[in-house]
Amino acid sequence: MAIVLAGGIAATPDGAYRADVRIDGETIAEVGIRVARDGDDILDVSGKYLLPGGIDAHTHFDLPMPDGTRTADGFFTGTRAAAAGGTTCVIDYATQFKGESLREGLDNWRRLADGKCFCDYAFHLAVTDWNDSARGELPEIILSGVTSFKMYMAYKGSLQVDDGVIYRALKHVTEAGGLLCVHCENGDVISALREELIRAGRVGPEFHTVSRPPAVETEAVSRLLSIASLAGAPVYVVHVSACSSMKKIIEAKAGGARLFAETCPQYLYLDDSLYGGGWEAAKYVCSPPLRGRENHDGLWASLRSGFADVVATDHCSFNFAGQKDKGRGDFGGIPNGMPGVESRVLLMYKGVAEGRLSLPAMVSAVSSNPAAIFGMFPRKGALIPRADADVVVLNPSGRTVISARTQFQNVDYTPFEGIEIPASIDAVYLRGVEIFRDGKFLGNTPIGRYVPRCSSGAPVISGNAQPAARF
Amino acid sequence: MAIVLAGGIAATPDGAYRADVRIDGETIAEVGIRVARDGDDILDVSGKYLLPGGIDAHTHFDLPMPDGTRTADGFFTGTRAAAAGGTTCVIDYATQFKGESLREGLDNWRRLADGKCFCDYAFHLAVTDWNDSARGELPEIILSGVTSFKMYMAYKGSLQVDDGVIYRALKHVTEAGGLLCVHCENGDVISALREELIRAGRVGPEFHTVSRPPAVETEAVSRLLSIASLAGAPVYVVHVSACSSMKKIIEAKAGGARLFAETCPQYLYLDDSLYGGGWEAAKYVCSPPLRGRENHDGLWASLRSGFADVVATDHCSFNFAGQKDKGRGDFGGIPNGMPGVESRVLLMYKGVAEGRLSLPAMVSAVSSNPAAIFGMFPRKGALIPRADADVVVLNPSGRTVISARTQFQNVDYTPFEGIEIPASIDAVYLRGVEIFRDGKFLGNTPIGRYVPRCSSGAPVISGNAQPAARF
Amino acid sequence: MAIVLAGGIAATPDGAYRADVRIDGETIAEVGIRVARDGDDILDVSGKYLLPGGIDAHTHFDLPMPDGTRTADGFFTGTRAAAAGGTTCVIDYATQFKGESLREGLDNWRRLADGKCFCDYAFHLAVTDWNDSARGELPEIILSGVTSFKMYMAYKGSLQVDDGVIYRALKHVTEAGGLLCVHCENGDVISALREELIRAGRVGPEFHTVSRPPAVETEAVSRLLSIASLAGAPVYVVHVSACSSMKKIIEAKAGGARLFAETCPQYLYLDDSLYGGGWEAAKYVCSPPLRGRENHDGLWASLRSGFADVVATDHCSFNFAGQKDKGRGDFGGIPNGMPGVESRVLLMYKGVAEGRLSLPAMVSAVSSNPAAIFGMFPRKGALIPRADADVVVLNPSGRTVISARTQFQNVDYTPFEGIEIPASIDAVYLRGVEIFRDGKFLGNTPIGRYVPRCSSGAPVISGNAQPAARF
Amino acid sequence: MAIVLAGGIAATPDGAYRADVRIDGETIAEVGIRVARDGDDILDVSGKYLLPGGIDAHTHFDLPMPDGTRTADGFFTGTRAAAAGGTTCVIDYATQFKGESLREGLDNWRRLADGKCFCDYAFHLAVTDWNDSARGELPEIILSGVTSFKMYMAYKGSLQVDDGVIYRALKHVTEAGGLLCVHCENGDVISALREELIRAGRVGPEFHTVSRPPAVETEAVSRLLSIASLAGAPVYVVHVSACSSMKKIIEAKAGGARLFAETCPQYLYLDDSLYGGGWEAAKYVCSPPLRGRENHDGLWASLRSGFADVVATDHCSFNFAGQKDKGRGDFGGIPNGMPGVESRVLLMYKGVAEGRLSLPAMVSAVSSNPAAIFGMFPRKGALIPRADADVVVLNPSGRTVISARTQFQNVDYTPFEGIEIPASIDAVYLRGVEIFRDGKFLGNTPIGRYVPRCSSGAPVISGNAQPAARF
Repeated sequence: MAIVLAGGIAATPDGAYRADVRIDGETIAEVGIRVARDGDDILDVSGKYLLPGGIDAHTHFDLPMPDGTRTADGFFTGTRAAAAGGTTCVIDYATQFKGESLREGLDNWRRLADGKCFCDYAFHLAVTDWNDSARGELPEIILSGVTSFKMYMAYKGSLQVDDGVIYRALKHVTEAGGLLCVHCENGDVISALREELIRAGRVGPEFHTVSRPPAVETEAVSRLLSIASLAGAPVYVVHVSACSSMKKIIEAKAGGARLFAETCPQYLYLDDSLYGGGWEAAKYVCSPPLRGRENHDGLWASLRSGFADVVATDHCSFNFAGQKDKGRGDFGGIPNGMPGVESRVLLMYKGVAEGRLSLPAMVSAVSSNPAAIFGMFPRKGALIPRADADVVVLNPSGRTVISARTQFQNVDYTPFEGIEIPASIDAVYLRGVEIFRDGKFLGNTPIGRYVPRCSSGAPVISGNAQPAARF
Repeated sequence: MAIVLAGGIAATPDGAYRADVRIDGETIAEVGIRVARDGDDILDVSGKYLLPGGIDAHTHFDLPMPDGTRTADGFFTGTRAAAAGGTTCVIDYATQFKGESLREGLDNWRRLADGKCFCDYAFHLAVTDWNDSARGELPEIILSGVTSFKMYMAYKGSLQVDDGVIYRALKHVTEAGGLLCVHCENGDVISALREELIRAGRVGPEFHTVSRPPAVETEAVSRLLSIASLAGAPVYVVHVSACSSMKKIIEAKAGGARLFAETCPQYLYLDDSLYGGGWEAAKYVCSPPLRGRENHDGLWASLRSGFADVVATDHCSFNFAGQKDKGRGDFGGIPNGMPGVESRVLLMYKGVAEGRLSLPAMVSAVSSNPAAIFGMFPRKGALIPRADADVVVLNPSGRTVISARTQFQNVDYTPFEGIEIPASIDAVYLRGVEIFRDGKFLGNTPIGRYVPRCSSGAPVISGNAQPAARF
Repeated sequence: MAIVLAGGIAATPDGAYRADVRIDGETIAEVGIRVARDGDDILDVSGKYLLPGGIDAHTHFDLPMPDGTRTADGFFTGTRAAAAGGTTCVIDYATQFKGESLREGLDNWRRLADGKCFCDYAFHLAVTDWNDSARGELPEIILSGVTSFKMYMAYKGSLQVDDGVIYRALKHVTEAGGLLCVHCENGDVISALREELIRAGRVGPEFHTVSRPPAVETEAVSRLLSIASLAGAPVYVVHVSACSSMKKIIEAKAGGARLFAETCPQYLYLDDSLYGGGWEAAKYVCSPPLRGRENHDGLWASLRSGFADVVATDHCSFNFAGQKDKGRGDFGGIPNGMPGVESRVLLMYKGVAEGRLSLPAMVSAVSSNPAAIFGMFPRKGALIPRADADVVVLNPSGRTVISARTQFQNVDYTPFEGIEIPASIDAVYLRGVEIFRDGKFLGNTPIGRYVPRCSSGAPVISGNAQPAARF
Repeated sequence: MAIVLAGGIAATPDGAYRADVRIDGETIAEVGIRVARDGDDILDVSGKYLLPGGIDAHTHFDLPMPDGTRTADGFFTGTRAAAAGGTTCVIDYATQFKGESLREGLDNWRRLADGKCFCDYAFHLAVTDWNDSARGELPEIILSGVTSFKMYMAYKGSLQVDDGVIYRALKHVTEAGGLLCVHCENGDVISALREELIRAGRVGPEFHTVSRPPAVETEAVSRLLSIASLAGAPVYVVHVSACSSMKKIIEAKAGGARLFAETCPQYLYLDDSLYGGGWEAAKYVCSPPLRGRENHDGLWASLRSGFADVVATDHCSFNFAGQKDKGRGDFGGIPNGMPGVESRVLLMYKGVAEGRLSLPAMVSAVSSNPAAIFGMFPRKGALIPRADADVVVLNPSGRTVISARTQFQNVDYTPFEGIEIPASIDAVYLRGVEIFRDGKFLGNTPIGRYVPRCSSGAPVISGNAQPAARF
């Protein structure tokens, strides 16, 4: 017996159009006019949008801290919040730490996630110890379905790698069919700025942003693009927060670079005035930090014009009470990160409702583009036959107010507290199973599955050399 | 009885994916897996791409010349060539000449086209006599389905309008729900350069390009964008030929401008070395002229990254023998224009085959974007339920060589002579009717229909305030 | 008998250094240590700066208005104010009106000025009626010592010329050894903006600036530079008011363009907040209008780095009572212009005192650069042997407050009212004659002489092909 | 008894003008008309240019190599070649190596130079081991007359420092009144590129340039300017070789940055085609390497417009036979550097003769600007009273052919072999002493003196707060 979502409006990168969607088992079978057949279960979704399930390409669940504690959200609560917010797949960052093999890094994260997820999940692999042995592992790792990697230009002394390593990794990851994601901030300069602030007794959370001004991001983005150009390699820039950085990305794309840019809802909605108010500022300590309000219009314009490719969350949650506290007396000790996986789809829809970008552009950014870039199309990110039936029923007549009191995220605050959205998520389907409806989960079993991925933007039609995905 | 195109690969801006397409009457009914029902006519298209029919947003059929002659292709031969090349809809430029009302200009063109077209057709309206009366006609013209207009910054003394007129037109056209297209070249400077060349005895066809260097285009683009920004109006830049001009467009988009850019196959494949060889150069006299080869990569990159929106042809054909001749002795007398409507879809596919852009990006440029920008989505430009069943069956195992000897275009040459394309157009469906197969038309009746259009990018879902199209 | 100015500090583009300056008759004889000879008249100027006399390259004295009235300052009062303010030479704009020959235009201005000037004077020639006859006059005009010309891209219907004329003029003026100055604002767009404002009843003086936003200047600058590049001609951009315009100039210079940029004290000190207050705003109606305060830093930086070449005044004075009045009820009727010739040198020195630019950079902008650019070096603009002994003794321990009550300008206000300068002009020498001391003129005879000029930046050392001037 | 150079043309940043220069003892006493007094020794220099003695702000004499050898030119031969070429002062780079104090580094270089120089000399101090102790030494070092420092972004593992060190040094050096010079190339990326080439067996000298493409310079320049902006510090960029780098510098200056840029004759005359021919390429191995010819015009334009400030040589000579040899089998082993101190003034004059820049602009770049920037004005770099009488008599009717056979440089080749210059250096005066005439030294005693310097661009007129120098 199949399910037909009837009378709704399919929202896709192509445009939004009236169509019935027929789901047969785990996948979409048909998109059409009156597609129901005998025995089908017909659900009326008139007046609602049907979106391909959201894909959050940047989460940190169950991330260990140097002091042995972990982020507030693990995979259980994190993916539950994701699903409640219309995200049916996350790509979390597994990390290979110093001394580990790539495989060990991945295995560690698989162990944390397997059996605990409410939505589907995949992994990028952050590499902090690049060497000939790691390089040797690349082909097998990619073949196994982990096709994207990450390096950090920041976090001197822990995660940071130097420019030579980035050059080498770009070359080798690309040759092996993978894609490198990079965190762009100049860690050396941040370290000097932080030292200067601490020496001057400027230790409060409001100085976090002073130690990481937009220029240290923009410089690092510019440097990365220069290195990627030398390496002849595509690259994915995570969490772009400032217009000056986005400008570098646009220039490089215009020059022919194969390049992807991600931004996050916090850089589109929040600003650095939140660092004004005493210890409360600690809630907003993340890297890169929130920027001046004058950056918002440009970032929205980048999304509208398709210059920015992806909106992800960098969800990395710490409780204000008990975890953020560790940085009292030295902003450097505040764990970096904020929650957000639950609010992303609705926050982006708010941009649509306010005329900042079109609905198709929004769907591209929250679902279709990450699927295409990270090798999940045509299985994820599209309302097309044979795709996983991950569907979000979004009600444009609904209303949602973001609040820590009502959220599924397992953390004691949300940076988006009080923001109103003129829509609600009525239902969420994961591979054909309705898992969430009207604010409640329909079961307590985490049925999310691990998703092995193809090479980024690789041909997905067997026996055919043409690029099928958009990138 | 419906038709099912079965086993092919749907090529859409979303991506390319395996799907059967069921056509019921004039429209697409379903896109899915095994969608055939009893009595359906099933056609096997395995191994073929199904594209939404091409839309050529820039043609000049049956255009009158000052001397009373007309372009070589009228609507009959022009739309026949279009259809043979996979283009199922053209948007031709009607012109309001001095002294005419807008309505008269449109009516003149409707008379030329009605009953003669092999593919569907619509009109932009070029305005050369802007005044309060023309301004007064705007709302009614737009309501009637002509929602885009054109002005010229070139052709001093005939079509050219001044910057004040462009400002006013941008304001009023936008307020009335229309979109202004602009030909960007500095006509005053061209006129001075031409005079200088003629005085110096430089009268051959090779001097056409000297009189219209890239800088006169780039300057005009930059000026237009500045005026559009002051007017707070979107604008569509026709036939961008030079990278320096595209750079201005990208900067403006990055700054938040609502802006569309068109380029043409001739600027992607041909270059100014063709002006080297004696009178033969007259074949390539068009405005803007062909540019240096160094522009090609940048223009392709703009398409790949979605910075350029549309590939149209500016088809405006004159016979080399008999028409181009008029400019012997003074390049200014050579009628400006080249044929191209027939080759556009395949030439762009060649770019896909050669890795210059993805198949989805190509489909966006040749079909989906012009549909969305010019108010034809969701009726045209998409393989979705309820859309007109305009479908092109493209065979990636075929082979086509462009040649004047085999073309449908009614002109004695093609600028793309000899170019090979690793694909063929196997069949073309117009609103559900197979009109072309394996190189031959299946009937001689011009069944093309006039297409009234909505406002550019306007909401197309009644009762819903959300933008449905991508722009 | 010679005069020796002893013990002062010579302020030159080279740097500022201690030196005695010996003046013999009309010219400087020596710059050195203890240069006095028997019988010399030694004047102690210790602690003072000796500047080469200021050159104001942009004034409009005795300018006729369409209604038959004239600017408040004619050559008598205008050059008197100039001299009192440390300017020993002005280059005024003579104008050839429609129907006149170039020679007639010049002769008209010579008649107005001859015998009435307190400082030396020369003329640029503004050309409003370009034709073959005017072109034919060029060589003789230039040979006679008028080597710079001007065209307007603004003032539609009166002074404005089209881009073709500018192209032709750039070519022919350059070939004849002259330099073209251009007023850059888009007159067509201004005209449309003004019409729109008037229709909307926005007629007050504060709407003048709305009708001429920075973008209409920046667009015109960009267009001019593009045309000049096509013509292979140098060009001089008058009164640059906005950073966005200066940016275009810097880019063109960096690309190798031979190009000069002028700004004015009003664009460095005043801002558009002055348009806020009722009819008082009429005082500040000039074109281009005052800009936002955010432009100041960039313009100062341009001077500091030598990207901007000249500071002139565009002095064009109208009485607030009686003249500016004519625009009550329609800002378009307010005569455009402000006084300023008297304050320029001290206002620029204020920038030195406040650390905005170096003293040598200031001297370059107010004296040496205009001399070099406009063909007056080595006679003017330098403290060197054989140069005219035009010397300003500036006292850095003095204090001056600009005020209409104390000014020599023959107009009932000054836009710089109340500005304090930590310096005074102690004495002014014109060709060896002390004409002004301690706030008073030492005679009432206008001894200023007409200065024929060489070609811009031309070799001035006979028999030597090397460029001697800096440009 | 004084000397009068009579009848010549003084070439200064102000312009070139006829003037007699009277030299009394070590300094210039007067610049004027007929300045000779009784008993003066009058030398007729009619038809000749008098230039302030050249200042080469970038030399490496007697530089130790890791293998214990030294550069071919020590201070004796190096300064002799400098003087013969019209350079009367060099600023050599002393180096503080790991483990040394700043003072030790300086003392080492003083020992090498004292008593051996034919022209005056001063030192910058390259810092490779930045720490709190070095920071503590800064004020005293600067007070002692060494006011400029250097850091390297290249040479990983030896000279290179990280971005945090550069930030700190910029802050502290600026606070102490000094100026930081920086070698901008990305050492980490160079290291990776070199490793890649060596692994691929690309070991010949032609691969040196492949390992250091323009992008690694441009990236480092861009990064440095970003760091300097954060530090609020001026900075001096040594040996800019590529237009793309110069573009970053111009943008930063336009944005208000206080910033100086140096280029070298090799980047204006030679190009990377010299890396084509076998082992001969080793002669041209220097860092940054020679660039494509397309960079030349832009660099000349930068000098013409004053966007580039200084032309120095980076003279660092190694014999082709015996020294360059060490890199056979691995281009990384070729000692980096070329001779050039002897040819700089004439090579730049060649640019004047060919119309690439004006004579005043040339004098600024080779003498006046380095004097002003590095705190030697008004003692050096100007033909003004009280300045050291360092004068070069340049004959524009002479002719010079650069050749290893005739050079004073103590090295077996010159990269400028065979270049003809339409001028000769007739005589060189060092502090009033004629040391070189018509190709020969007039004595064999090295009379050059050490020159302590003031703070960069600092006030040099005691008791006066105004900036006297141009920067």
